[in-house]
Amino acid sequence: MPATVSMTFHLRLWLETDEGFVLGPGQAELLYRIREMGSLRQAATSMNMSYRRAWGRLKRTEDKLGRELVRKLGGNKSGYQLTEFGQELLEGFLTLSREIEPIIQATAAKVFPRDIHIHASPAPGSGEKQA
Amino acid sequence: MPATVSMTFHLRLWLETDEGFVLGPGQAELLYRIREMGSLRQAATSMNMSYRRAWGRLKRTEDKLGRELVRKLGGNKSGYQLTEFGQELLEGFLTLSREIEPIIQATAAKVFPRDIHIHASPAPGSGEKQA
Repeated sequence: MPATVSMTFHLRLWLETDEGFVLGPGQAELLYRIREMGSLRQAATSMNMSYRRAWGRLKRTEDKLGRELVRKLGGNKSGYQLTEFGQELLEGFLTLSREIEPIIQATAAKVFPRDIHIHASPAPGSGEKQA
Repeated sequence: MPATVSMTFHLRLWLETDEGFVLGPGQAELLYRIREMGSLRQAATSMNMSYRRAWGRLKRTEDKLGRELVRKLGGNKSGYQLTEFGQELLEGFLTLSREIEPIIQATAAKVFPRDIHIHASPAPGSGEKQA
């Protein structure tokens, strides 16, 4: 009998509008860090991204959505916080990723035959684990 | 109140070994078509892929797995069929994709607030729908 093959199961979730990609694990991570750090600059730096690049990504996403995701804070020079919509979108994405992962793990264990071992990879967009 | 934002939800599933990527929607589609058509050449052509490229992809995957996915048929010149392992891997992947999709759809509908409408995209690797 041949040896068991061991594989990892990966999953990527993302959202699109008619105008294309709007939110995936990377963008969710950026929003998550802005929320935690209260600063777009700090969030970008912590992800090895320039402020300019992070800002550009956010603006493109906002354009496609026709809604704002972040807003500048008054007092702090580089202070940013999520809008209510940005907060809802982020929470929805993170919750979905978290709820889907164990279901996929259980389904994979059921679906694949015994000589194929499947391990699930960490949930995508699970900012909490990486932050 | 701002207009409702309508988004499509997308999902990509794939399998890796320690040596990297082995099976995703594209590779699953190729295996599915080989099974249906009994020919690697026809399967490749139907996916706008050269025979050489399709063959190369399969061989790289087999190398990483240390198992054969397809085998040549005796009678027909370009005839191929899936090995038992190839069949198991394909079935597992397709079943997983099919079972996951409605769960994600239901979870997304529950998780996102009412001003974000989420529609699920077709299941990835669901060769049946495209063939």
